[in-house]
Amino acid sequence: MTGVGIYGSSGRMGRAIADALTEAGATLAGGADAQDDPAPLARIADVLVDFSAAGALDAHLDAAVAAGTPIVIGTTGLSTAQHDAIDAAAASIAVLQTGNTSLGVTLLAILVRDAAARLGPDWDIEIVEMHHRHKVDAPSGTALLLGEAAAAGRGSMLSELRVDDRVGLTGARSEGTIGLASLRGGSVVGDHSVILATEGERVELSHFAQDRSIFARGAVRAAIWLARQPAGRYRMGDVLGL
Amino acid sequence: MTGVGIYGSSGRMGRAIADALTEAGATLAGGADAQDDPAPLARIADVLVDFSAAGALDAHLDAAVAAGTPIVIGTTGLSTAQHDAIDAAAASIAVLQTGNTSLGVTLLAILVRDAAARLGPDWDIEIVEMHHRHKVDAPSGTALLLGEAAAAGRGSMLSELRVDDRVGLTGARSEGTIGLASLRGGSVVGDHSVILATEGERVELSHFAQDRSIFARGAVRAAIWLARQPAGRYRMGDVLGL
Amino acid sequence: MTGVGIYGSSGRMGRAIADALTEAGATLAGGADAQDDPAPLARIADVLVDFSAAGALDAHLDAAVAAGTPIVIGTTGLSTAQHDAIDAAAASIAVLQTGNTSLGVTLLAILVRDAAARLGPDWDIEIVEMHHRHKVDAPSGTALLLGEAAAAGRGSMLSELRVDDRVGLTGARSEGTIGLASLRGGSVVGDHSVILATEGERVELSHFAQDRSIFARGAVRAAIWLARQPAGRYRMGDVLGL
Amino acid sequence: MTGVGIYGSSGRMGRAIADALTEAGATLAGGADAQDDPAPLARIADVLVDFSAAGALDAHLDAAVAAGTPIVIGTTGLSTAQHDAIDAAAASIAVLQTGNTSLGVTLLAILVRDAAARLGPDWDIEIVEMHHRHKVDAPSGTALLLGEAAAAGRGSMLSELRVDDRVGLTGARSEGTIGLASLRGGSVVGDHSVILATEGERVELSHFAQDRSIFARGAVRAAIWLARQPAGRYRMGDVLGL
Repeated sequence: MTGVGIYGSSGRMGRAIADALTEAGATLAGGADAQDDPAPLARIADVLVDFSAAGALDAHLDAAVAAGTPIVIGTTGLSTAQHDAIDAAAASIAVLQTGNTSLGVTLLAILVRDAAARLGPDWDIEIVEMHHRHKVDAPSGTALLLGEAAAAGRGSMLSELRVDDRVGLTGARSEGTIGLASLRGGSVVGDHSVILATEGERVELSHFAQDRSIFARGAVRAAIWLARQPAGRYRMGDVLGL
Repeated sequence: MTGVGIYGSSGRMGRAIADALTEAGATLAGGADAQDDPAPLARIADVLVDFSAAGALDAHLDAAVAAGTPIVIGTTGLSTAQHDAIDAAAASIAVLQTGNTSLGVTLLAILVRDAAARLGPDWDIEIVEMHHRHKVDAPSGTALLLGEAAAAGRGSMLSELRVDDRVGLTGARSEGTIGLASLRGGSVVGDHSVILATEGERVELSHFAQDRSIFARGAVRAAIWLARQPAGRYRMGDVLGL
Repeated sequence: MTGVGIYGSSGRMGRAIADALTEAGATLAGGADAQDDPAPLARIADVLVDFSAAGALDAHLDAAVAAGTPIVIGTTGLSTAQHDAIDAAAASIAVLQTGNTSLGVTLLAILVRDAAARLGPDWDIEIVEMHHRHKVDAPSGTALLLGEAAAAGRGSMLSELRVDDRVGLTGARSEGTIGLASLRGGSVVGDHSVILATEGERVELSHFAQDRSIFARGAVRAAIWLARQPAGRYRMGDVLGL
Repeated sequence: MTGVGIYGSSGRMGRAIADALTEAGATLAGGADAQDDPAPLARIADVLVDFSAAGALDAHLDAAVAAGTPIVIGTTGLSTAQHDAIDAAAASIAVLQTGNTSLGVTLLAILVRDAAARLGPDWDIEIVEMHHRHKVDAPSGTALLLGEAAAAGRGSMLSELRVDDRVGLTGARSEGTIGLASLRGGSVVGDHSVILATEGERVELSHFAQDRSIFARGAVRAAIWLARQPAGRYRMGDVLGL
């Protein structure tokens, strides 16, 4: 049984991760929060999971390296310097850093990249997402992640292909562009569809999140997998063998 | 058997309507185009269908009134004066004027109005449509028609509730607004979905057009129905008994 | 503020109903369970909600009648004798009995009946539902409820039109039948789609349940509405003014 | 410009293929039907396409081998002996044999296999398809093809995992099974969705065919690609580089 140590253990994600351990066949090695010394936890855990805050990451990473313990980092808003620190840490321990721990989204992004690469430029790509009424930005981070995957499949960057607005006299669609549309309403946790459409046929690749527990569950699966990996920097796709 | 006379008979819709007659149990009384005198056709037909051009409508309407023959008008871009002329004609003959002859869309608009009226303002309304890559404007006329139906259900006008853009820091959704999103790609004839979403549940009302023959078929059904109606101005919803 | 009394208050639905009261602008008048005398609660509540067990209903109904207090009955598995007792009670108090308190499903069933009635028999009707992997029967009760609504729109009963199996050499579709298909997987709370398809176009009417709280929320809305009604037997559709 | 020779040129698919050549940047080298000697066409064409009848295939294959011309075979109902003959021919010429020339379906099958392989057995797989009311068998050949792809991703055969019926008291879903459901109605050309659902999330991979021209278009793309390949036996996936 893999013993998982949780940084940010009293936060919403930290508690959700603790809840998801048993079902996945792992155990809780312990938890630590902002006021705690991160070193003891790093020494007793088989693998660490960090969903705390960007400001706390440096100390957690140091503790992981000192103890030689692999670490899954789901904390967002990291600086360039922190990404460099992760690269440096990956020379001695296994590190997996990701902005989205859902296995379904991770898989979908890879399928989208493949589909965009295989189907020619005569297949138009559109992405539509729906989230709850309280979400304050658009498109969602996951829609952008899927858009980047589609653009990568076409050998490009989303910023070069992206079309956000379609209102009024837009003119005909420009070949190779990627359209993004956002819907808001109710309590929708997160629906994403990537549509590839050509003359006479359409392929649609979608992900529907029912509740936020999927992020905790994906983080736990990543942790169990990472505990057995050699030093290096990993991504969620690696957990799925992709 | 209802004998149908077609104004604009050599146009794309005129020919499609002629093709749809037999299947519907009607016959072609005859056709007329811009260069023809509209009066003889009006006298021999049981009912007229006009999908010609706005500039030709006045003469067609006069011929219908003179002959006492009901007329279905699907021509678009009518002026206020022409709408007044239609009202005047409706004092002596049955006239059905509409911007969309699809039975499915006609029904959907009524269901949307009912749903918006019955479900309270805590049900957010979003409309998303997809059309082929050659379409030059957005949202589609049908999306706007559905948006008006939703707004009417809430005792308002679409122009007061409409939100077209959701990009960047939008803030939380404003209660009572109606969001519109447009996708473009491939050869999609016309997909429309109206989503009503609240805490924990969602109702989705959609129409999918597979080919343009549905507009001819709906016009023929309207004509057969109108041939049996007393003088008055009718709408597509009346054909469905709505 | 409407004071709601809950029979079966310690059950799953009873607790969910108590949780939903405040948000809806109602208050908890009190709760009672199997071992409690139901009479005092009936006397202090403005309206009662019963999600207990069929065996307990008779006593709850007697208490409601004695106190002259309206009652929402969501308990399932009622006998014919119990339905007769409800009818008798409805002579002196307002009673709403229902098998599904979701407002979205209630609305959808009415839209489906209307659509089936308005669109002719050349519109084929299919119903597809998806539920979680633990569900042991198929189709779902809600799919059957929607099928009955569609059949009623056609002036018939579901039992006469229903087609459950489509495997092997089925032959062409028989006009007027209603197809039912069930999918099972994951933790899906309940998705239902009613498809009406004809030559060239399709109307699709769907409901997606995200979590089971919608049943409690609908029951509370029904209770608040029922508290203001005269004696009589009501259905969920009445709450929506349908 | 690739010169394409068509066996079965006066059939429905033969004519559709001829129509699709120009758009794809190919030319018609010529056509032949049952009564014609297949040898001259094989000598002048850069690549052959056969959508004739199983009984005519042997002569077409012999002509292709004799002339050293690659051949795309879309004819269905082939015998084991004919598959052996194709293998033998592939020693000297490039041969691509397939039951479905849609690029979208070809891609989807590969995505489905990958998804099924990457996501563990706690992701339930369901396949639902819809076709027009005249279709006489169920599930569709494409649904079975997608089911085989899903089963292959799990290291199994569809026949071992398949569940066709879900009616009555089915009991809970058995892990690892693949459910199949078929809807029929209207004039739907062919919709297919593969759903992978687990606790809290769902991935849905779909293909929607709008008209039958996609099969001709895919055959032409396969022919242009095959004209440049060395001897060997190919599949549609190879055209997409999969």
